Amino acid sequence: MSESTLILFHNPQSRSAGVRVLLEALEVPYEVRHVDLKAGEQRRPEFLAINPLGKLPTLLHGDAVVTEQVAIHIYLADRFPAAGLAPATDDPLRGPYLRWMAFYGACFEPALVDRAMKRDALDSSTSPYGDFDTMLRTLVDQLGRGDYLLGDRMSAADVLWGVALRWTTGFEMVPRLPAITGYIDRVCQHPAFGRAAALDAAMSSG
Amino acid sequence: MSESTLILFHNPQSRSAGVRVLLEALEVPYEVRHVDLKAGEQRRPEFLAINPLGKLPTLLHGDAVVTEQVAIHIYLADRFPAAGLAPATDDPLRGPYLRWMAFYGACFEPALVDRAMKRDALDSSTSPYGDFDTMLRTLVDQLGRGDYLLGDRMSAADVLWGVALRWTTGFEMVPRLPAITGYIDRVCQHPAFGRAAALDAAMSSG
Repeated sequence: MSESTLILFHNPQSRSAGVRVLLEALEVPYEVRHVDLKAGEQRRPEFLAINPLGKLPTLLHGDAVVTEQVAIHIYLADRFPAAGLAPATDDPLRGPYLRWMAFYGACFEPALVDRAMKRDALDSSTSPYGDFDTMLRTLVDQLGRGDYLLGDRMSAADVLWGVALRWTTGFEMVPRLPAITGYIDRVCQHPAFGRAAALDAAMSSG
Repeated sequence: MSESTLILFHNPQSRSAGVRVLLEALEVPYEVRHVDLKAGEQRRPEFLAINPLGKLPTLLHGDAVVTEQVAIHIYLADRFPAAGLAPATDDPLRGPYLRWMAFYGACFEPALVDRAMKRDALDSSTSPYGDFDTMLRTLVDQLGRGDYLLGDRMSAADVLWGVALRWTTGFEMVPRLPAITGYIDRVCQHPAFGRAAALDAAMSSG
């Protein structure tokens, strides 16, 4: 499988932004298929045959289809371990690493959508994430415990969260608390962010 | 870490139900801390100090705290590989395995909550899961491709989904389509389901 081509269906203004940063951080070769969301290319039959949800990111690795941000981040960081962005399965940090990965998809995103859409809060026992303020406080408390989600060590979880928090604070969906902006600044110093931005800019102007 | 005690904070009528089945399937020793949800034990300071969301499942493994169903399923199946319930990181099925794990937390659960609460549908480009019917069709199409989510091979993803679909079809939140009921029946034949049910029943009556 390691010789199989990685193909990322990508648009810089979508949830695939972080996957490109991660691929740059892992320093593995990959191809990009630009998906023009404004032109509705995510609704074309060829793409829906790969991901019926019509969503980015979508990754092909050989014959394997991998969708969902959380799955793709976990998959790539494990599959290409040389960059050291995933604790090994017997590392004491493995559980917390997976926790903060899953928390993104199961808690942060749904809470953010509910808040952005001004929906009535769910009963906290029904809601997968409890309530927005508790979800955010749980995240911010963790960010306050170290430079990265796992403490001293940057991981693929920080790529996921760094990109997401930069985006959501930019749109003022998440408050610019010092613990959050400091974290974004630290994570985005990784050279992969600059490389991905340059490649995305070249694609947009190309 | 393998000698550290696994402690599951558990209530059979909660999202921790599947984790107990998985632990039984992995045949590893673990301890259960029953959390009486009706008595509000999930809101006690001692528990909130471990998981500030006040949610089950919550797992302790040595000093590590692991929360979120998806994280705990991935963590345990990788950490105890003897049962063969997780494709290895270089297995061609690893990406699809993680895809269906993440799909549960990021698509199925939010879609189900939105539907159950009769919320207005989101614009499909904003929604992480698109729309409920597309989400469900994507899942059902996959279930129709083989006996298990990965084809012939049962994995920890099937434990997660088997428990969730049994529960949600039971409450008629998910339609009892033949592809779904057949899948539930196959997965729940695994002896771990019977062992977990017996242990849960003994706990409830104890």
